[in-house]
Amino acid sequence: MYLTNKKVAVMGAAGAIGSNMVQDLLATGTANNIAMYDPFAAGLEGAAEEIYHCAFPGANVTWTTDQNEALNGASYILSSGGAPRNEGMTREDLLKGNCEIAKGLGESIKRNCPNAEFVIIIFNPADITGLTTLVHSGLAPGKVSTLAALDSTRLQTKLAQHFGVAQDDVTGCRTYGGHGEKMAVFKGDLAVRGVKITELLGSATVNGKSLTADEWTQIQNDVRGGGARIIKLRGRSSFQSPSHQSVEMLRGRIQSGGYPWPCGVYFGSSDYANVMMAADVDFGPDGLIPRTPEGDAEDIATLRDSYQHLCKMRDEIIGIGLLPPVANWRDVNPNL
Amino acid sequence: MYLTNKKVAVMGAAGAIGSNMVQDLLATGTANNIAMYDPFAAGLEGAAEEIYHCAFPGANVTWTTDQNEALNGASYILSSGGAPRNEGMTREDLLKGNCEIAKGLGESIKRNCPNAEFVIIIFNPADITGLTTLVHSGLAPGKVSTLAALDSTRLQTKLAQHFGVAQDDVTGCRTYGGHGEKMAVFKGDLAVRGVKITELLGSATVNGKSLTADEWTQIQNDVRGGGARIIKLRGRSSFQSPSHQSVEMLRGRIQSGGYPWPCGVYFGSSDYANVMMAADVDFGPDGLIPRTPEGDAEDIATLRDSYQHLCKMRDEIIGIGLLPPVANWRDVNPNL
Repeated sequence: MYLTNKKVAVMGAAGAIGSNMVQDLLATGTANNIAMYDPFAAGLEGAAEEIYHCAFPGANVTWTTDQNEALNGASYILSSGGAPRNEGMTREDLLKGNCEIAKGLGESIKRNCPNAEFVIIIFNPADITGLTTLVHSGLAPGKVSTLAALDSTRLQTKLAQHFGVAQDDVTGCRTYGGHGEKMAVFKGDLAVRGVKITELLGSATVNGKSLTADEWTQIQNDVRGGGARIIKLRGRSSFQSPSHQSVEMLRGRIQSGGYPWPCGVYFGSSDYANVMMAADVDFGPDGLIPRTPEGDAEDIATLRDSYQHLCKMRDEIIGIGLLPPVANWRDVNPNL
Repeated sequence: MYLTNKKVAVMGAAGAIGSNMVQDLLATGTANNIAMYDPFAAGLEGAAEEIYHCAFPGANVTWTTDQNEALNGASYILSSGGAPRNEGMTREDLLKGNCEIAKGLGESIKRNCPNAEFVIIIFNPADITGLTTLVHSGLAPGKVSTLAALDSTRLQTKLAQHFGVAQDDVTGCRTYGGHGEKMAVFKGDLAVRGVKITELLGSATVNGKSLTADEWTQIQNDVRGGGARIIKLRGRSSFQSPSHQSVEMLRGRIQSGGYPWPCGVYFGSSDYANVMMAADVDFGPDGLIPRTPEGDAEDIATLRDSYQHLCKMRDEIIGIGLLPPVANWRDVNPNL
């Protein structure tokens, strides 16, 4: 009845993403054996009670404010349990605070669930918090990932709205590299009702609509600001889409495939070595296997730029001491 | 891929329950053709964008601030679109305000989707707002219902926690009549791991635990205060459980059965005539067919009390003029 009966630990389960994720795990028939963790006891108990009142058949949902207890023996770990960016905090404050949380999570995984099969990190900056979790967890690189789909699904949404077509009619939407301002929005295989983006940027039309270079630039900018727009409209950051797409990623891991969007994945070698970034993946027995993105010169230049930005953020974290120097990563995680 | 491709109108879709419901409809594979309505445009667009970013395959989700457009041709209507009780408002203020909304919704259903197959009302006091919607909609009585499961699932939760057993081990949990202080918590067929509640209130134990009369009274009181407890713990009223159970009710209607909890259902005759209240139901071609609750003298006395309370609230609404006198209901709705 559920795809897996193995233990899933949801970290940050009192929050909007975490509590939605528990519901989505059960509602989609993905997992029934769920440990909810959050340091905020009252909100956590309230979220758990709501799940109990949903009365999902066969559910075994527990809650705890003890991170070790939640992780103990967990096969899958979904964490949205970072700190939000508060007023007056710089990006660096957020980076440092959340990487401290990520380091603690990684070390706790190493102690409590060294046989974990998949970890999904959702708190920002996810490329860096995911990488920090991976290094400290000791897990094989394919077993730690970050949610990276939303930039691509936002691109799909924007193009569907531009052309007035169904979302499914927009295929091959891909953003690679880092999340945020420096994401690489790829033209790649992008097509609307089968008409390639390169043709649309020429003279082709779909549903009577064309796409000018300016409109395409605007759409890319809108995608980069997609998260900020949700905050403006709803008065809070997105939580339904990160939750649901994370559950879909987990389904991909459990079913060894079928997840159609980019994932945050560790590159051990290639031109993009020693970062975690959004890319297409294959699902193997040891988790995600990255595919090196391919595109035209413009796409690749954007991705190289995004990669350099990720390296810079990674090196900041190394400078703070929350990650060892790259050459020493294997001392902490022999799987790297 | 989805249980139905017919149009589902979600009213109040910018709110916590409504936006969760759209996600749950899609995530459970229940419906893909969804019109989101809310008077609050920015929040509605934000909620819709989040659903788009989830990228549900085959989804056709629209949003509008025009209630008529949302309802036009809808087969199913789920409404959490009442006003919340604000500080300084009396229960009567809430009753009057939400029954005005319910009357408007019923009239709008009559104009825009007279062939609607099922309506679920979720805003409080649901027994009365549901009844008001039914009378003004002109629909057959089995086609308008209210969410009534949460009192029963809260009873199941409390007993599972008391005995330290899985929720599924607690069977036959039933609360009938009105929602709120006057709900009738039935002993009926209630059992824990097959041991009847009457035996447990004697000397029987389950998992080494007994149940004293005082503990049973406390559990009933906890169930009556279950909603208030969520507000205390989470700082907001429950939204995940009302959303998910409403979707499960809709699945029951679409599949002509399989929904295991009481529903708010109209009683045209019997000892409980001319109210909508929680009861077990069968699912027929014309919607819900109520089963008259049966129980021991104590259970039935509690239900009679709850029924009298519902009649009193109904008569208040008749007094205000939002419902015609019972004898004139057929002038408005010939199906009654």
